[in-house]
Amino acid sequence: MGRWEPNARGRLAQAAMELYSEHGFEQTTVAEIAKRAGLTERTFFRHFADKREVLFWGSAALQESLINTLDGTPESAAPIDAVAVAIEAAGAEIQQGREFSRQRQAVIDANPELQERELIKLASLSGALAHTLRRRGVTEPAASLTAEAGIAVFKVAFERWITDPKQLDFPQLIRETLDELKAATAGR
Amino acid sequence: MGRWEPNARGRLAQAAMELYSEHGFEQTTVAEIAKRAGLTERTFFRHFADKREVLFWGSAALQESLINTLDGTPESAAPIDAVAVAIEAAGAEIQQGREFSRQRQAVIDANPELQERELIKLASLSGALAHTLRRRGVTEPAASLTAEAGIAVFKVAFERWITDPKQLDFPQLIRETLDELKAATAGR
Repeated sequence: MGRWEPNARGRLAQAAMELYSEHGFEQTTVAEIAKRAGLTERTFFRHFADKREVLFWGSAALQESLINTLDGTPESAAPIDAVAVAIEAAGAEIQQGREFSRQRQAVIDANPELQERELIKLASLSGALAHTLRRRGVTEPAASLTAEAGIAVFKVAFERWITDPKQLDFPQLIRETLDELKAATAGR
Repeated sequence: MGRWEPNARGRLAQAAMELYSEHGFEQTTVAEIAKRAGLTERTFFRHFADKREVLFWGSAALQESLINTLDGTPESAAPIDAVAVAIEAAGAEIQQGREFSRQRQAVIDANPELQERELIKLASLSGALAHTLRRRGVTEPAASLTAEAGIAVFKVAFERWITDPKQLDFPQLIRETLDELKAATAGR
């Protein structure tokens, strides 16, 4: 083990995101990330499996947080309302790092391989939500449809949140977007 | 150009699907596919870029068909109803090859790389639907949400259709699944 570095993970992630934004994801090396963060490559690899992981290590925490919040809602709640509570809570967490989220999305949008990875993570989130709903007694196809609706709302609200110059509140945007999904599916 | 082979594409696709099902996608070679179809490798490569393309060449036609049907609906129709017409028509086309669809899905489900490809194709379909809706005057986020809802319904209905032992009617399942999405998002 090397010596303890205060907030090494955060410094590495910050340095990586700057370099990906400046030079592109493909062109950036782990050596450059470590150097910019004032740390060693060895320290980088203690925190991340590879440079792609810098962009996706938050996904597991996001999924866990979504599932925990969903599981904490009363089973008497309508499934869509329980999912709404979970994605709003996730939105409130993500909101704490808007600039990081914005840079991350720009890096992903510029790279088809990273876009694929992002699609897989979103499909995994949807699958985990559906699984949790079934465990709570929701039958199919309602469980899968509610999960897909939740992820669609999350995706569209996220896109609005990071592109809106007024920097609207993300959980509030999630609520509005869900209302708009309800209106759209109802044919209004 | 080699000599003309009657329905070479169909024979190659059929042979490929049999081999993928029997031995797995990874283990199957183009030489084996051509041999089983009674054709040459050269003929294979006149029809497909690679062995993965056998599974996905229908996606472009599906997207074109979806967009054309959507564009053919009256602009006065609610966007969700126009999208429903488009995905039901696509379902009616796909329904003509249920066994092919079932085998194809089993091959994809067994291979993470193919699953990624499938997710990308579905995301592309959703993007194309949203683009067409915007062109027809639907504003955001309604266009993206309606497209996402349509693709979610298509995915879930497809899963039901290929797994249901009663071999239900696919367009009918799409209609029912859309009704279930409406009920789920409304919190009923």
